[in-house]
Formats: sequence, C-alpha cells, structure tokens
Amino acid sequence: MAIVGFIGLGIMGRPMLNNLLRAGHTAIVYGTNAAKLDACVADGAQRGISNSDVAARSEFIFTMLPDGPEVEQVILGPDGVLAGARPGALIIEMSSINPLVSQRIAAAVTSRNIGFLDAPVSGGEPKAIDGTLAIMVGGSEFSYGLAEPLLKCMGSTVTHMGPVGAGNVTKLANQIIVACNIAAVGEALTLSTRCGLDPHVVVSAIKNGLAGSTVLNVKGPTIIARNFKPGFKLRLHRKDLRNALLTANDVKLPITTVLQQMLTSLVDEGKGELDHSAIVTYTETLSGVEIGLANKNV
Amino acid sequence: MAIVGFIGLGIMGRPMLNNLLRAGHTAIVYGTNAAKLDACVADGAQRGISNSDVAARSEFIFTMLPDGPEVEQVILGPDGVLAGARPGALIIEMSSINPLVSQRIAAAVTSRNIGFLDAPVSGGEPKAIDGTLAIMVGGSEFSYGLAEPLLKCMGSTVTHMGPVGAGNVTKLANQIIVACNIAAVGEALTLSTRCGLDPHVVVSAIKNGLAGSTVLNVKGPTIIARNFKPGFKLRLHRKDLRNALLTANDVKLPITTVLQQMLTSLVDEGKGELDHSAIVTYTETLSGVEIGLANKNV
Repeated sequence: MAIVGFIGLGIMGRPMLNNLLRAGHTAIVYGTNAAKLDACVADGAQRGISNSDVAARSEFIFTMLPDGPEVEQVILGPDGVLAGARPGALIIEMSSINPLVSQRIAAAVTSRNIGFLDAPVSGGEPKAIDGTLAIMVGGSEFSYGLAEPLLKCMGSTVTHMGPVGAGNVTKLANQIIVACNIAAVGEALTLSTRCGLDPHVVVSAIKNGLAGSTVLNVKGPTIIARNFKPGFKLRLHRKDLRNALLTANDVKLPITTVLQQMLTSLVDEGKGELDHSAIVTYTETLSGVEIGLANKNV
Repeated sequence: MAIVGFIGLGIMGRPMLNNLLRAGHTAIVYGTNAAKLDACVADGAQRGISNSDVAARSEFIFTMLPDGPEVEQVILGPDGVLAGARPGALIIEMSSINPLVSQRIAAAVTSRNIGFLDAPVSGGEPKAIDGTLAIMVGGSEFSYGLAEPLLKCMGSTVTHMGPVGAGNVTKLANQIIVACNIAAVGEALTLSTRCGLDPHVVVSAIKNGLAGSTVLNVKGPTIIARNFKPGFKLRLHRKDLRNALLTANDVKLPITTVLQQMLTSLVDEGKGELDHSAIVTYTETLSGVEIGLANKNV
C-alpha cells in the first residue's frame, strides 16, 4: 500500500481520493476549504498543513485542480509541492490543463529528481465515484509503471499516451469531439423542432445509423427534457477549448474556433455553471426555438 | 405481392430494387442509362419505356434520384410519373432532397388523387444491399400504412416522422450530425498527430467515453489508413448541407454554415467524389498535417 498526497478536493477529486482510500492506501490531504478538508479527514484521510507538508509526507502526490494557473501555483508556488517533495517522489497531475503547462511544470520538477505524469480524466462525477474514469497519461514508461496500479483504483481505462503532455493532448482531442457533437445535436434538433417534428422521434430514427453517438444517447434526452443540471460545467468546457486553441499553434481548427466563440458568449450570458449540453441553447436563442416545443410544421 | 415501379437505378436504387424483387414483388423499371436498365431486367425486373409508362403500370412508384431538380423532372416533367400514374397510386420518393421540394411535389400530385410519401434513407450502399437501411418517412398515416410492408423489404428501421417533408427534415438532421462528427474527429486527430501522438491510440483511449460515436468507430480507422474510397460521396453530403441551410430559413445553424463552406472548398479542390470522411482533409491541408503521420512531439 502506498502513501499518497491528494490536493484538490472538488467534485472530481473527492471521489477519486475516496477510491484510493477504499483500496487501502494512506492519504494525506490539504486544501484551503476547511469544510472539504474536514470531510476528507472524516473519510479516513490524514490532515496536511500545507501543499509542501503533503508532498513531504508522500511517495505519490496527486493534484486535481481547475486549470493550469492553479496547478502551477500549487506545485511551483511558495510552500508548494515542489518545495516539500522528496527526491524520488512522483507527482501525478490529473487536472485538465494546457499540455504546454504540463511540460513546463515537468521540466521544473524533474530537474529536482521528482517524477511527473500528466493524467487527465474523462467521465465526470458519476465515473469518478464508480472508479471507472478514462485516464490518459503522459510521461516516462518508468513513472507510468509506478503510477498505473494507483490510477486503476480510479479508472477502468488507463492509457499511456506518450511523453509528458500527451495525456492532456488526448483530453483536448476528447473535448473537441464532445463539444462538436453536442453542438451538432443542437443544430439538428433545433431545425427538427422548428419544422414541427418531435425530437424524441428524430433521435430514435437516427441513433442507430452513422449519426449515432454517446452524446446523442446520453445528452439527447436530457436536452429535450430541458435538464441542464451539471454534470460537467460549460465554463470548464470553454476552458478546455481555449487550451486546445492555445496548444494548436499552427494547427487550424475552424470548428473548434467557432465553438470557443459560442461557449464564450454563453458564459457571458451567465450560463457557465450549466451542464455543457447547454451549448445547444446558443442555436436555440439565435433561432427563437426551444428544442422539444414544436413551433410550426415544416 | 405488389406491382411496383422503380426509377433511379444508381448505387442505392439498384440494391433497393433487388430487395423488392427478392421479396416477390413485380417491378417495372426505367432509366436513361441503357446498361443499368438491361442489368435490372436481367435481375428480373420488367422494362418500362418511360417514366410515365412505369407509373401507368404500377400501384407504387419508387424514385431514388440525386437531388430535388431531378425528382421534380421525373415526377412532374413531360412524360413523367404524374402524367402516367393512375388515381390511387402511391409515389414513394426516397431521394434525399429539400423538404420544401417534397411538399411542392406532394401538393401537385395529391391534387390529382395520387398519394405521396417522402422516405429518404440512411446507411449507404452496404445497408442498401443488406436491406437494413434506416428509412425516415413523411406523409399521411394512410399512405404510410400502405407503404410500410414494402419499405421493410429495404430497411430495418422504418419510422413515420410526420407529414410530407418530415422524412427529409429528419435526413437533414442526420446529415448535420454526421458531417459535424466527422469534422470533429478531423480536428481532434489533426491536433493529436501534430503533437506527436498515435491517432490509433487516441481513438482507443477516448472511444468508450462521451466522445464515442459511430463516426469515430467506423470512420476513424479508415481516415487514419488514408482510405477515402466512397461510401457516401462528399459532393452529395455538400448537397444535403445546402438543403439544410435552405430549409433552415430563420433557424440559425452556425456550425452547419461553416461545414457547408468547408465542403464547398473541398468540392472546388476536386474532392467531391471522395468519401465524405475526406472532410478531415480540410483541416489537414490548412495545417500542413496528415493524420497518422506524427510530425513532432507536443
């Protein structure tokens, strides 16, 4: 059994930590939210007094934070993970961030003989709870081998993608596809509704063909039911698309660029806390149509 | 067993006709391509001498043509289906066309006591051959009831969507989603390739999550293998998106609009005869990257 540090006790981090505890590992936690920290201690974790204290007491240090700036602060900042970590320790950075930031952090920590993996996840809160996340890992074969048994406590699909950054590139690829597939369902069902069709019947008529997708199966019914409770928040998906465009550099991503503009508008309208399936409301609002309510026949 | 006319003996029409013949129906065929006509006669169909002759001899008249102008010509044009059809006959128009054109034709033929259904299909040549197409039908309950047993010779999912035009609206919804999902896979794998990842590994890391789709499963491997043999031709998908935008009227479809521009550029570059999965080459060409060939690490 390993001694693990865990920093980042939010919607995702908390159930991921619990799956490590449940597997019998010893966990030391720290965070600035006292209530969340108390709850983790009640679940069996030990209380750290700072990020560096967590790192000093752990063989493996997990971080699960909103974006790159928070990760840089927690790992490289004052009294941070790097200040405390012992040589030979391994940082497993599971946030979804710009892969170029992963590489910058990796360069700083590996020069101090600390290992680093970027290991972002996909699947959201339900799969974090069930321990069935998809985990996409970048880093050396050696570090990956050390981390794999721990990652398998949290995920059912754990894939070594390549060197540091490759995990987050894969996550960006995932997020591009998901946002695009949601927008596609939105345009298709907005048009169908406007033409007087029942979107439930449209979904069942097309879902077994080439238009079939997990988004159509999972989000189609909740969109039609006007249920935008998150799930995965729209503002975080916008952050991911922004990171994709920052990473793209000389790669042109025309659809992702339009999507990023759409998501930015939606966040500006106050929809950032809704589920990312609320991407469909962009086309709805532009068109004066709400999916599910037939306005007229074709 | 019914007496059916069949007009439109192309890649899709020919195997659909064969499934009607195989079910024991009598078929009369006509087309301007003598070789195709001879082949259908060799398969057991009877030769018609014109569109109106086919119609005059049939209870049900099927049409399977490239786009709206061809359908209007064949049904409403000189010596066309309407000129020959007997009162009480039913036209089952299976082309993928603008639903507004379906409605215009329906108005012309129903005023002469001829029934009309729009019944476009999805699934491509393999499912046309197997008789497992998805068929989306618009028209009256009465006409749908008459046609359903014949349509089930050609399709495994036959759905009555609403009044005339509803079949083609559903097909447009399908085509919006398919084009968007292909473009999404293209952007995701172009970025991944540019960052040095193996796109095969990216696909297997993400396909079981929310990014999963039939496009990713079916077209991902052929895109990576650079196999753009049609399948469904890109220029026909462009036609479908054009029809979606024509139908949309006051509905705004921002992603579909970008896709339509992309497909138009690709047709202008001479890629219209490739499989529609060649949509991915738009981003590739812009970016100087070919999916599958790693150019550098992230």
